[in-house]
Amino acid sequence: MAESFADRLVMAVLNKKSQVCVGLDPKVDSLPEGLIERHENESQKGCGCRAVASCFEEFCGSIIESVAPHAVAVKLQLACFEQYGPPGMRAFKHLCGRAADEGLLVIADAKRGDIGISAAAYSAAYIGKPSGSKGGKSGFKADAMTVNPFFGSDGIGPFVEDCDRHGKGIFVLVKTSNPSSSELQDLVLDDGSLFYEKLASLVSQWGAGLVGSEGYSSVGIVAGATQAQALVKLRQVLPHAFFLLPGLGAQGGRAADVAPVFDSKGLGGLAAASRSIIYAGSGDDYAEAAAGAAEKMKLELWEATRS
Amino acid sequence: MAESFADRLVMAVLNKKSQVCVGLDPKVDSLPEGLIERHENESQKGCGCRAVASCFEEFCGSIIESVAPHAVAVKLQLACFEQYGPPGMRAFKHLCGRAADEGLLVIADAKRGDIGISAAAYSAAYIGKPSGSKGGKSGFKADAMTVNPFFGSDGIGPFVEDCDRHGKGIFVLVKTSNPSSSELQDLVLDDGSLFYEKLASLVSQWGAGLVGSEGYSSVGIVAGATQAQALVKLRQVLPHAFFLLPGLGAQGGRAADVAPVFDSKGLGGLAAASRSIIYAGSGDDYAEAAAGAAEKMKLELWEATRS
Repeated sequence: MAESFADRLVMAVLNKKSQVCVGLDPKVDSLPEGLIERHENESQKGCGCRAVASCFEEFCGSIIESVAPHAVAVKLQLACFEQYGPPGMRAFKHLCGRAADEGLLVIADAKRGDIGISAAAYSAAYIGKPSGSKGGKSGFKADAMTVNPFFGSDGIGPFVEDCDRHGKGIFVLVKTSNPSSSELQDLVLDDGSLFYEKLASLVSQWGAGLVGSEGYSSVGIVAGATQAQALVKLRQVLPHAFFLLPGLGAQGGRAADVAPVFDSKGLGGLAAASRSIIYAGSGDDYAEAAAGAAEKMKLELWEATRS
Repeated sequence: MAESFADRLVMAVLNKKSQVCVGLDPKVDSLPEGLIERHENESQKGCGCRAVASCFEEFCGSIIESVAPHAVAVKLQLACFEQYGPPGMRAFKHLCGRAADEGLLVIADAKRGDIGISAAAYSAAYIGKPSGSKGGKSGFKADAMTVNPFFGSDGIGPFVEDCDRHGKGIFVLVKTSNPSSSELQDLVLDDGSLFYEKLASLVSQWGAGLVGSEGYSSVGIVAGATQAQALVKLRQVLPHAFFLLPGLGAQGGRAADVAPVFDSKGLGGLAAASRSIIYAGSGDDYAEAAAGAAEKMKLELWEATRS
């Protein structure tokens, strides 16, 4: 029986005294100068996707190495890799392996959701085992992934089963960091509660069977660090959930906004920042600059979140 | 200026007298006997993913060729390909190209959704142009894709922009075919309406600027063929939307259930069936059997849906 994702995450936070998750969302036009040009020269064939993919591997790989002492996890944004087709997906896979080698937990920010049989295939791709011609073969090998709850319980079930079976985790989208998240997520229901609160109560059921020895479940949620009021409400409905908190830094979320999510030991939340770390430097020093930004965020959060 | 997706779809339906979309959701354990074994012998290296991917290419490729006279579109389920990693994604890409060569419209059943900048990357991957090192390079090249509306307007905006710019389409998830779709999609709001009705009114706004010459928008919806009552309500809220209707056949939806979606010319809906077509035969005759099943479905629908 594999150790649960929740327990592995708790251990990592306590060992590193860090609640930082570095978001790897590489964009071509934000890469350090000279990097693209160098990879173009190395790879003339194909559509340019290979050059971009190999850039992303070098850039994100260097950042993974440099932030490893300060972060507990990395969150790789699938969209950034997927747009470069099969070479992009290969870079994604290599980077998952590299982060694991550095002792980081790997979160595939995939936001997948589908009906049961297709959800099972997405789960297999990232946290389970694809049914291959020679039995269970390994997919992208993340420790956890983000999932979209739109389909309800039978769309989430296959992910939860893989969490249980393989010691993996999921973070269910509940209240997102973008401005228009209110349009659907904040709709008022006939009993006066909000849509995202109802959703949170479903997540509580989905994760109830996967609570680890420290009181946290391997079924967590995604809740924007920009949503201070919602975070307080969500913690009440979900005492056992780890909150993945994107939106710190560039999107405007502050350490004080997310503090209510954490318990007295500093557990219960994972603060994700991308741009403010990976683009902290713009020249050849980008990896060192990222390490500095990650360390600063780690210390600030550790200070702000323990009572 | 590219011809709009909606107009291309209308032309295809009228020319072929077909409202059939064949769902390509290949599963290893449902493939014709002997196929896997043959591909295993051809490809000994790697994790088995390559053997599965090359099987999927042969299997789906043969079906594409045989159903092309009877269907207007194919819908490729990303989950099935993605679980086999980069080789799976390459098979997906090749099959998109093959379907286009056969004159079929290609729908990437990706169900992607994310905040603005990541949504833009997903859109670029399937219906737009990825920002490459040498300018706009082509991604997976589908004609349309399915998207998840959880993030609201700013998550949908980038897809709508690409639809407009490149003559592409999206189908927004509104009311899905799975049993637990009711848990969130049917929640009753404080004004007595249902969640999916509110969502449909948002979709109406998102698609308002993309209505083509036949009165249909390139922003359509996904609504389960199993949801007969919901289909009637949705058509009232969305007079200009094309409905992508999965769940016909194996999932229990019938031609009569979806008939109210169509106008008097037989336009406005695209009925998707997968298992009942692609597994119509189980031996070497699978492609002919699929053609037969697709033709039967085409004739039944054309008869049942025009008034």
